[in-house]
Amino acid sequence: MNRRLLLVSNSTLHGSGYLDHCQQHISNFFGKDVKKVLFVPYALHDRDTYTRTARDKFKTLGYEVESIHEAKDPVDAVRRAEGIFIGGGNTFRLLKSLYDNKVVAEIRKRVLEDGVPYMGSSAGTNVATISISTTNDMPIVYPPSFSAIGLVPFNINPHYLDPDPSSRHMGVTAVLMQFCVQGLREGSMLLVEGNKATLLGTTKARLFTRGKPSVEYDPGSDLSFLLTDLN
Amino acid sequence: MNRRLLLVSNSTLHGSGYLDHCQQHISNFFGKDVKKVLFVPYALHDRDTYTRTARDKFKTLGYEVESIHEAKDPVDAVRRAEGIFIGGGNTFRLLKSLYDNKVVAEIRKRVLEDGVPYMGSSAGTNVATISISTTNDMPIVYPPSFSAIGLVPFNINPHYLDPDPSSRHMGVTAVLMQFCVQGLREGSMLLVEGNKATLLGTTKARLFTRGKPSVEYDPGSDLSFLLTDLN
Repeated sequence: MNRRLLLVSNSTLHGSGYLDHCQQHISNFFGKDVKKVLFVPYALHDRDTYTRTARDKFKTLGYEVESIHEAKDPVDAVRRAEGIFIGGGNTFRLLKSLYDNKVVAEIRKRVLEDGVPYMGSSAGTNVATISISTTNDMPIVYPPSFSAIGLVPFNINPHYLDPDPSSRHMGVTAVLMQFCVQGLREGSMLLVEGNKATLLGTTKARLFTRGKPSVEYDPGSDLSFLLTDLN
Repeated sequence: MNRRLLLVSNSTLHGSGYLDHCQQHISNFFGKDVKKVLFVPYALHDRDTYTRTARDKFKTLGYEVESIHEAKDPVDAVRRAEGIFIGGGNTFRLLKSLYDNKVVAEIRKRVLEDGVPYMGSSAGTNVATISISTTNDMPIVYPPSFSAIGLVPFNINPHYLDPDPSSRHMGVTAVLMQFCVQGLREGSMLLVEGNKATLLGTTKARLFTRGKPSVEYDPGSDLSFLLTDLN
């Protein structure tokens, strides 16, 4: 399997601009061969403005951006894509639009079979996993399923917040324990190349597995076992 | 419409026991005529333990508890109920179980037509509204719809957290603005009697209406306009 994924926890870090904190990783990831990236702005309501933001940023990195919402045929746009970037916003809105536009299976095929590089941020990271069951977003629209694109065999919570030790609200942690979950804190990224997974960025991530204590991993950690354990 | 609702934000306040913070309101609400309350423990996985907790607490207030999960026929249990209490947990699990057991319409009928008093806490407050679209819970199971019991014509976010002014995460507030939402903070309750709604408890609540600035209300405020505006 020659999949290549860059799964980013969030598109902005406090005090910096859009995708600034991961721009070197983006350049390394898409490299020199990709000239144009297909952007998926479905997670936000205002797709035009969102596309302008992404287009401006990717231009500074040397990439053209085509937005899927401007394409006549979204499925065809995926078939033609050299690289894919799905941005953040509301995870339910994003997944519903992916299904409405019938691109879920086509993105999966392009990434897993053809090796098209896939970058996700926040909600775009969430939908890259087996399901959106660990999103923190509100269910503002009703998607036809919670199953997602399924590029990796586990869940990711892209905005994992450490439970406040003084709080009695252990709800989030309790829920996460029901899945094999990678909890990415702000500034975290997961790079997947084939069957190798590496934690990038500046903050630790926490792994939750049902029936086991959770484990912390430092940036740079090899997390490839996440891909093979469940495969 | 002779509906009677007690919609509580959360079942425990820091440092106190289960339903302690609202026990006087519970006694006032169910009164002397109700002898037995139908408890709905669907929001948690361990329904037996949850029922014991609720039964023990209601016993101290002078009420018997029948749990719907112990009834042979859940719909019949709703038909026989003198009073209903739906407890908190995961909102998606709760709503799915309400649909699976075919009690959504029956609870609506009993409360709106027969005047059976309905108490909800947290997820049980969420499902009393038009939809679960403002829950903060994770979508761990897939309900057949996000439409809920519909006892009031607006949404409630039962665990409203004030946005941190130092944070750039305005996501929650932005989403809430899309609905007519009552944001209940910990310790808040909404009492609905027919077409009269009153804010009870110890903390303010915040009202979000699409296209309008949000408004804060003190405990004791008359919020009846919420019921008539959209009816």
